[in-house]
Amino acid sequence: MILGILKEPQDESRVAFLPEAVKTLLSWKVSVWVEKDAGSKAFASDELYQSIGAEIHNRNEVISQSDLLIGIQPISEVEISSMKPRAVLMGQLNALYNPELTKYLIENNRTAFSMELVPRTTRAQAMDVLSSMATVTGYKAVLMAADLLPRFFPMFMTAAGSITPSRVLILGAGVAGLQAIATARRLGASVFAFDVRQAAKEEVLSLGAKFVDVEGAKEDKSAGGYAVEQNEEFLQRQKDTIHEHASKADVIITTAQIPGRKAPLLVEERTVKVMKPGSVIIDLAASSGGNCALSQPDKTVEINGVRIVGVGNLAAKMPQDASKMYGKNYLNFLKLIIKDGNINLNFEDDIVQGTCVCHDGKPVSSRIQI
Amino acid sequence: MILGILKEPQDESRVAFLPEAVKTLLSWKVSVWVEKDAGSKAFASDELYQSIGAEIHNRNEVISQSDLLIGIQPISEVEISSMKPRAVLMGQLNALYNPELTKYLIENNRTAFSMELVPRTTRAQAMDVLSSMATVTGYKAVLMAADLLPRFFPMFMTAAGSITPSRVLILGAGVAGLQAIATARRLGASVFAFDVRQAAKEEVLSLGAKFVDVEGAKEDKSAGGYAVEQNEEFLQRQKDTIHEHASKADVIITTAQIPGRKAPLLVEERTVKVMKPGSVIIDLAASSGGNCALSQPDKTVEINGVRIVGVGNLAAKMPQDASKMYGKNYLNFLKLIIKDGNINLNFEDDIVQGTCVCHDGKPVSSRIQI
Repeated sequence: MILGILKEPQDESRVAFLPEAVKTLLSWKVSVWVEKDAGSKAFASDELYQSIGAEIHNRNEVISQSDLLIGIQPISEVEISSMKPRAVLMGQLNALYNPELTKYLIENNRTAFSMELVPRTTRAQAMDVLSSMATVTGYKAVLMAADLLPRFFPMFMTAAGSITPSRVLILGAGVAGLQAIATARRLGASVFAFDVRQAAKEEVLSLGAKFVDVEGAKEDKSAGGYAVEQNEEFLQRQKDTIHEHASKADVIITTAQIPGRKAPLLVEERTVKVMKPGSVIIDLAASSGGNCALSQPDKTVEINGVRIVGVGNLAAKMPQDASKMYGKNYLNFLKLIIKDGNINLNFEDDIVQGTCVCHDGKPVSSRIQI
Repeated sequence: MILGILKEPQDESRVAFLPEAVKTLLSWKVSVWVEKDAGSKAFASDELYQSIGAEIHNRNEVISQSDLLIGIQPISEVEISSMKPRAVLMGQLNALYNPELTKYLIENNRTAFSMELVPRTTRAQAMDVLSSMATVTGYKAVLMAADLLPRFFPMFMTAAGSITPSRVLILGAGVAGLQAIATARRLGASVFAFDVRQAAKEEVLSLGAKFVDVEGAKEDKSAGGYAVEQNEEFLQRQKDTIHEHASKADVIITTAQIPGRKAPLLVEERTVKVMKPGSVIIDLAASSGGNCALSQPDKTVEINGVRIVGVGNLAAKMPQDASKMYGKNYLNFLKLIIKDGNINLNFEDDIVQGTCVCHDGKPVSSRIQI
């Protein structure tokens, strides 16, 4: 069978498989067709793919001839319609928030897998693209903040006097938040972190940060490690606590997202206004409504000398290691559905079932509600 | 007397004194006149300066009325001619490499101090702007490299496999190089460093980096800690060693400068060509000829996927702490020449003498040769 690797759209610099991962695919006795220039933004040339045994083809050929077509960003409906009749599509299709695409895939009797649906179970951890990309995002968010900040992160004792460490406040201690804490600590900042889940407290403390406590949060163990929505009284107490900490912060990095809902508002306009000129807010939830009242997706705005960066796809800004991690996640997933060089779908497997958007004209994952 | 603080030119974002430092100046019973908008790029507003007792004036007023006129970058000849007859000018005038300005100052019977001339003695350490700005530069160079690199600096062990740490090669272990080593180590990179001065070896090792040895370097203890020029045979051996390490490096940061001469060529074109696509070279000596054969001042060029950044004034990219350090250096120096609210020049003091470009129509520092 032919496994096709797509070149991503203009504003994406990752690629689903770097040459190193393609070597593994080839060892599984599949033919690998790579779209021309697919790896160029991740510094992997067509020649490199060819040298290990992959074929380079143009986009039409890859889409129309592949039995298994893999990318990261979704492809268009027209392109889906030109795929082979029983070919399988795989990507980060954003199936829960893109009902049109999901409907189209079902109506056209396609088999599609969407990597953000990988269940949050221990066995599936090695395939969890959301986790691996959040690791990249948390790291890059801190580098971005450190680069924008007109101050040092670490403390300095110099002959001419001392420089105090910067104070960094991380809102949300999921994978991205924890990575941001770790990176800011590495750079010597004094780090404070907040999360509604008390379970996060221990992890925050173990990374050398201080935990900002707001009492009375609602928790839900069934939310798969995600935070759940809170009542009004708690939300106000939370905003007040953040407001209090913000005036002392040099950097705020917000990472709070609730799957399927608008991101919670954590940093109000009044809070931005008490911050010191020169300080920086990195809002990683900007594309889903924003944790900061003043952030705008993919833009940097400046209010009273406070710069607020609405961050989009940060993982694409570190294409080599992000692609490497993405490819590893894919390889671990493909082990479940490729047998003896052919596709073999076992829907009894909870990971295969949970990640599948649709098959045979019907939705498969229980999370797909059409 | 009036101490005037200049607004810096367009491409400079530092200011000689932040409001905090102005407080100290005011306690010395001098009037402080701050040029309108002088601190704005360092996030210090005119209102803030006014609130602590400084006066805001336009540029002409500050230049024509100050008894002591202080900035960072040099001012123009026309502006110098409009200063008060016996007023003193202070800045980083680059007196050794700017003979026209030096001549003009002497011919116009000006008294001028140039902060890069501060002797490299223990007592003068607290006034050494070259050291404090090199600290900023080394730190920022690593942040810049980490942000450009398509890979992580630190090692990661994840559910989906491991990420190896990036390999960073620092050429030149002076103040900027040592700070770059420390910052790259903080971020978890594997760091190698090279310097012709064997004295640097211990410092490099104590920061957790590996020292790249090239035997047979010429040293000169009288060079004030700077490296001296080497013979052809050594230079070739040095280039070969760097070439060997470069092919394994993800990042090279070059910091080698020899005062008054073109920067030594350390990274040849053939060396860039063996580097991995995606790797990054930060050339901190780009404005004095470059340590890398392919670097261009204030530009980023890409050759075979290797990006070479010719860095100019990096200290200006961290204006708050850079200005804070600059101001501290200035305050420590001014303690030597301000007595009871007035200028009192004691040329018996080796620091005052060594830092003074000219006075009474004659060059003063022995390093000024006109």
